Amino acid sequence: MNLALNTLIDLALAEDIGTGDITTDAIVAPDKTGAGTIVAKEQCVLAGLDVAKAVFARVDNAIEFKPACSDGQLVAAGDTVVTLKGPLAGLLKGERTALNFLQRLSGIATNTHAYTRELTGSRARLVDTRKTTPGWRVLEKYAVRMGGGSNHRMGLFDGVLIKDNHIEAAGGIQAAVTKVRRELSHLIKIEVETATLEQVDEAIAAGADVIMLDNMDADQIKAAVKIVNKKALIEVSGGINRGNLKNLAASGVDIISVGALTHSARAVDLSMYIH
Amino acid sequence: MNLALNTLIDLALAEDIGTGDITTDAIVAPDKTGAGTIVAKEQCVLAGLDVAKAVFARVDNAIEFKPACSDGQLVAAGDTVVTLKGPLAGLLKGERTALNFLQRLSGIATNTHAYTRELTGSRARLVDTRKTTPGWRVLEKYAVRMGGGSNHRMGLFDGVLIKDNHIEAAGGIQAAVTKVRRELSHLIKIEVETATLEQVDEAIAAGADVIMLDNMDADQIKAAVKIVNKKALIEVSGGINRGNLKNLAASGVDIISVGALTHSARAVDLSMYIH
Amino acid sequence: MNLALNTLIDLALAEDIGTGDITTDAIVAPDKTGAGTIVAKEQCVLAGLDVAKAVFARVDNAIEFKPACSDGQLVAAGDTVVTLKGPLAGLLKGERTALNFLQRLSGIATNTHAYTRELTGSRARLVDTRKTTPGWRVLEKYAVRMGGGSNHRMGLFDGVLIKDNHIEAAGGIQAAVTKVRRELSHLIKIEVETATLEQVDEAIAAGADVIMLDNMDADQIKAAVKIVNKKALIEVSGGINRGNLKNLAASGVDIISVGALTHSARAVDLSMYIH
Amino acid sequence: MNLALNTLIDLALAEDIGTGDITTDAIVAPDKTGAGTIVAKEQCVLAGLDVAKAVFARVDNAIEFKPACSDGQLVAAGDTVVTLKGPLAGLLKGERTALNFLQRLSGIATNTHAYTRELTGSRARLVDTRKTTPGWRVLEKYAVRMGGGSNHRMGLFDGVLIKDNHIEAAGGIQAAVTKVRRELSHLIKIEVETATLEQVDEAIAAGADVIMLDNMDADQIKAAVKIVNKKALIEVSGGINRGNLKNLAASGVDIISVGALTHSARAVDLSMYIH
Amino acid sequence: MNLALNTLIDLALAEDIGTGDITTDAIVAPDKTGAGTIVAKEQCVLAGLDVAKAVFARVDNAIEFKPACSDGQLVAAGDTVVTLKGPLAGLLKGERTALNFLQRLSGIATNTHAYTRELTGSRARLVDTRKTTPGWRVLEKYAVRMGGGSNHRMGLFDGVLIKDNHIEAAGGIQAAVTKVRRELSHLIKIEVETATLEQVDEAIAAGADVIMLDNMDADQIKAAVKIVNKKALIEVSGGINRGNLKNLAASGVDIISVGALTHSARAVDLSMYIH
Amino acid sequence: MNLALNTLIDLALAEDIGTGDITTDAIVAPDKTGAGTIVAKEQCVLAGLDVAKAVFARVDNAIEFKPACSDGQLVAAGDTVVTLKGPLAGLLKGERTALNFLQRLSGIATNTHAYTRELTGSRARLVDTRKTTPGWRVLEKYAVRMGGGSNHRMGLFDGVLIKDNHIEAAGGIQAAVTKVRRELSHLIKIEVETATLEQVDEAIAAGADVIMLDNMDADQIKAAVKIVNKKALIEVSGGINRGNLKNLAASGVDIISVGALTHSARAVDLSMYIH
Repeated sequence: MNLALNTLIDLALAEDIGTGDITTDAIVAPDKTGAGTIVAKEQCVLAGLDVAKAVFARVDNAIEFKPACSDGQLVAAGDTVVTLKGPLAGLLKGERTALNFLQRLSGIATNTHAYTRELTGSRARLVDTRKTTPGWRVLEKYAVRMGGGSNHRMGLFDGVLIKDNHIEAAGGIQAAVTKVRRELSHLIKIEVETATLEQVDEAIAAGADVIMLDNMDADQIKAAVKIVNKKALIEVSGGINRGNLKNLAASGVDIISVGALTHSARAVDLSMYIH
Repeated sequence: MNLALNTLIDLALAEDIGTGDITTDAIVAPDKTGAGTIVAKEQCVLAGLDVAKAVFARVDNAIEFKPACSDGQLVAAGDTVVTLKGPLAGLLKGERTALNFLQRLSGIATNTHAYTRELTGSRARLVDTRKTTPGWRVLEKYAVRMGGGSNHRMGLFDGVLIKDNHIEAAGGIQAAVTKVRRELSHLIKIEVETATLEQVDEAIAAGADVIMLDNMDADQIKAAVKIVNKKALIEVSGGINRGNLKNLAASGVDIISVGALTHSARAVDLSMYIH
Repeated sequence: MNLALNTLIDLALAEDIGTGDITTDAIVAPDKTGAGTIVAKEQCVLAGLDVAKAVFARVDNAIEFKPACSDGQLVAAGDTVVTLKGPLAGLLKGERTALNFLQRLSGIATNTHAYTRELTGSRARLVDTRKTTPGWRVLEKYAVRMGGGSNHRMGLFDGVLIKDNHIEAAGGIQAAVTKVRRELSHLIKIEVETATLEQVDEAIAAGADVIMLDNMDADQIKAAVKIVNKKALIEVSGGINRGNLKNLAASGVDIISVGALTHSARAVDLSMYIH
Repeated sequence: MNLALNTLIDLALAEDIGTGDITTDAIVAPDKTGAGTIVAKEQCVLAGLDVAKAVFARVDNAIEFKPACSDGQLVAAGDTVVTLKGPLAGLLKGERTALNFLQRLSGIATNTHAYTRELTGSRARLVDTRKTTPGWRVLEKYAVRMGGGSNHRMGLFDGVLIKDNHIEAAGGIQAAVTKVRRELSHLIKIEVETATLEQVDEAIAAGADVIMLDNMDADQIKAAVKIVNKKALIEVSGGINRGNLKNLAASGVDIISVGALTHSARAVDLSMYIH
Repeated sequence: MNLALNTLIDLALAEDIGTGDITTDAIVAPDKTGAGTIVAKEQCVLAGLDVAKAVFARVDNAIEFKPACSDGQLVAAGDTVVTLKGPLAGLLKGERTALNFLQRLSGIATNTHAYTRELTGSRARLVDTRKTTPGWRVLEKYAVRMGGGSNHRMGLFDGVLIKDNHIEAAGGIQAAVTKVRRELSHLIKIEVETATLEQVDEAIAAGADVIMLDNMDADQIKAAVKIVNKKALIEVSGGINRGNLKNLAASGVDIISVGALTHSARAVDLSMYIH
Repeated sequence: MNLALNTLIDLALAEDIGTGDITTDAIVAPDKTGAGTIVAKEQCVLAGLDVAKAVFARVDNAIEFKPACSDGQLVAAGDTVVTLKGPLAGLLKGERTALNFLQRLSGIATNTHAYTRELTGSRARLVDTRKTTPGWRVLEKYAVRMGGGSNHRMGLFDGVLIKDNHIEAAGGIQAAVTKVRRELSHLIKIEVETATLEQVDEAIAAGADVIMLDNMDADQIKAAVKIVNKKALIEVSGGINRGNLKNLAASGVDIISVGALTHSARAVDLSMYIH
């Protein structure tokens, strides 16, 4: 698991428990044990079980956390997702933080799943963007995969995306691609964002590996697919929703990126029962 | 500003920039400057301007960040929210992370604002819960205030909320309240979660400062208001939406808590233009 | 246990062991084991056993640490407090840091105990202040509780104390209370520091939950108790020592705060014997 | 300044301000400025002005902090020690933490000063021990110097002190010294703790650079001074107080170590006035 | 600049200055200023000027650091590389750490430069490997670029390299490529390590973007170049030195990777003169 | 083990694994296990086995790491150095970082060993300098000891070395020594760097414990040895290589310091085989 996750979990526990759980510490004896279950209150695709487990382990590593399902699984309302056993105080202290992680990540997986169902049978890939919750990038991109989506680059470091400002700073698409190619590891591809068909032409001529069609309409996309003619991958971006996804996929593009997968997912409803 | 925020901003920049922005570093000369504006693409209530500023300062403290609006302000689609000036590479590297903070926090403020409008003229307070994004507690509770809401306790450390598991562990409401009171700073109040009118009776008898009515229906709430009879504050929780908010407020309760303020807000649409 | 404690323990071990215990590393073979006892050299109230345990665990988690007493217990000179077993090098490296924690915290508990004995039979509470050793707040407030005292707020975040500068900035007690009330979680009370009986009047009128009488003499305190007349809790602060504690408590105040509990406690004498 | 100090200051501010100063944030406008003075309420030797300054800088670096005195200076009750100017909210938030540092460090300097006055005219050095507040080692040893004392080793890494357990593990003083000498940088001296005159003999024979006489009485010390006969430095330790310091110094020893310099100093009384 | 660098600089200063520079602190008054120059004592290619600057800034941000040359520049013995001005104590404390960074990074740039001169006129790229000093990856790969080399992937996260263990775990090259392709961002290429010409065939058939020829001899390489026939990039690795570099490049391969660029570079000789 | 090492290992794993090992994570099932051996590919002196073990433990603490040799041991090409067992994914992720540590540290030990062999039979000590890799000081000085060398001071905090700038700032050697002596712990010795025989005279007169002869030729060294006449230890520094080491040692000096032990060692060849 990603090392930065430990920092996020520590931040999360510090902000919730802070100088102490004054209710639990006053009432629950340290040696009292308990058991619990985490239950889905609505149909959803799970993501984040390992994170929830890590939260409880950090609170008290005597807590046993047994998943009854696995990440990526579609569960029904009422399904038991996890069973827990261990010190009651620890269960109470970790509950909210663990659920907050699990509900948000499962929310993203569930949201992504709703989009990917529209693409059944298509060869186009649904991918996420960098519009993720700061501090949560790796987790949210993992949740997208659990929902059946794919990932765009993780960040600015593992993929090249030449945008309008880069093009202008370099003095043109060809110049920008050349500058990047010179510095680049041979394992990373170059994507160029285009707003017009002329730019698509230039990007192909410059040897771009991937062409992003930014906010183009259906006719422009069709024309671009012809221009590109399999010489590069095509990504469409902007103005995409579950309603127009199927048609977009049918137009011959390779990749469809949707920021809403992460930035507009709501938490799904999961509860923890302790007894 | 909260010290933990620095850690979250560092996490966010590390996950996005990582070992370097390979596109920008190859194309944009370190001494090239630029200017930018952040613009609202839809009507929203702003929150997080200071956080966005801190992000750019961390990327390159030569960047000037001038807010044209302030947190808590309702802005219209098309309004310029911030103007920026400074090293172009820094503007490009900070853009996505700054926007991700600003869009999510403004989303929560905007969502809260939609709820609080329903309460105009009422003396009941709309409050948030602990169902926040892990790592973001202080920020999201701030955004709730910017949207016109109020805050419940920040975490487990600055307020007592005696729940069913605490009651059971203590052997009753009276016992639980007594145990907590003994350990408690004299500046913190005690809230007791109740599921039945009998429990409301017991909580009042035990001297609770606040009574939470958990998932009670309208009739139960009315009865509870009578029982409590101003001897404690009353919070209602569970099953609340924008539709039933007004009626709830009219029933005489003091506080209405809604997890959806934070856990189901979507990011609002803001863009940054660099030139 | 509080997460910040790990940071303090790491700081403490880093400052003591630094780049290595050059004496022990040169002399003691890594696989040599030993045993030890921590013994009280004077009568005292213990506090900090879990911290001492955590120190040894951090040095070498193969060390077994068995408390023979518990925090809050009054032990006599000569009593064995802890027995230890494990790698000799680890025992030698952890000894001084563990003792430094235990001696200081037990010193505070013992000092507090000497004060609370004066209050036997009284309903007034002895509380600490924010005059604690930087980095040690949670630990020292815990030690105060182990000595029979109670805690004032933990910090600036979990209780409101309106002081003279706040009153002046707000333009009066009433204005200050109103401003705070608007922003405040419903679980936190408001205390107002007063220097005159007029201010006591104003604070009551403003609805303060607690009135602090700052450096008032016995006659003023009596008058204040009458004015307040149970409408708020009363805290006295300033000029308190073990000699006048009993009389103060008899005057009808609820809370007596004493900075000396923490800022003027001396370490109690505990030794560790290794064999 | 020592880098670890930043961590301690952050810990201290986090534990005091935590999720926010709810009183000040609600009442004091961010752009309101103020001024302050820190005043000695009793005669004392100052130490820690730079630390107090660093605290305020960390809270708000717009605060101007001007020392009117310097560390090591003996000031009288009523003397102004520091004047401050800047954002009022920052002054209020930093006040308690800055004072807590300054009062404790000045307490140690003042306490040390009381001991060193007894040694006027003597060539013996008064030194501290490792019995310091965990997390505060460098600061407290600095305060000892400000009070006119000297420092023993900083920790286990910058000086060799062979104690009874080391001697036993090595199989004798000679063996212990030999083992350490082999591993040791040529810039570090070897001190051997002795409990009997026989051990003093052995330590001298082994080539120890410094001999510690642990808890020896006056006669033993005299005999030891003769045995050592300037072939090594002599440190006495144990059972030392301000009363017997002068006589000890006259006995011909070089170094007198006193744990009470740090572990039993009380905070001196300093106040901050904001206006 | 990479955020992790701050951590490395702090580690470096902590290990060198630790609890204080006891020589300088005792001798050099805090307000004494000085000037210095960093001078090349041998011909070398510079790398790390920004790092050296950051070291001095961390020690004392009043130090002015003016580079007289730039990274990537070939300088002669005797050339002044940097001039400095500021607090003398800070210059003395930062000197060794700054030089240690600059000498090692310039050593790598210089070493790389010696290799790349052999490739003048060739279209093959010289690249580094992951055999870098732990903690220094980004810095050392930067130094390689300053010496005229190129970078292989930064780490395990920004490039796929399928090695023998992966092939075996997947059950063949085709299976391995398929599994990775499914999970992979569309901006990252897939490289397959091959030890035989059969594996080269399989890798091409599986659609690998890059084929690594691991420790193949000249004849095998020639054969592989034919098989691949421009359908993928070819990297050679293993057994490469400055003597055989030219011939290798002539064989038609695209990329030549050399671990010795980083793991066997010696520090170049640079000195700092303070006056 | 040194606490700072954890930070270095975390830095190292973060820079290599970052947001995830995309090859291994896609191919190797989490529950698949494997075994491995680390083998010497050339004759070398080992150093760093505990560090390599700590790396694997941090990646996955289910990995068993069994050293077949020990640090300081001279092994032959082909010797198995470590055997490993555990989760295959963890073995693959930790391999490169663990080897990078082990190869560099063994490289230093091997290099040092080559120097110390020249000193067989001599009583002069070969010591390292502060010219180490930033972040690696404690590790590299440990490797020097494993190769048969000794350590100079660890850093600026545990030994006094008065250099030309200190002498000038103090106004002479005598003044410098006096100033330092006043502040210094009695366990730390004073070394003075000298460039002329006059300075040697002055340093002896000032009571220096150690005299460093900086870049003196053979005749000067002989003269200096006479002047010092056992009243202090003598260290020679500058212009030393394996060729002149023996003669230098014979000239009667005590300590020979060589920066090349650390700054010019190359990594030795070790490989890991996983199956």
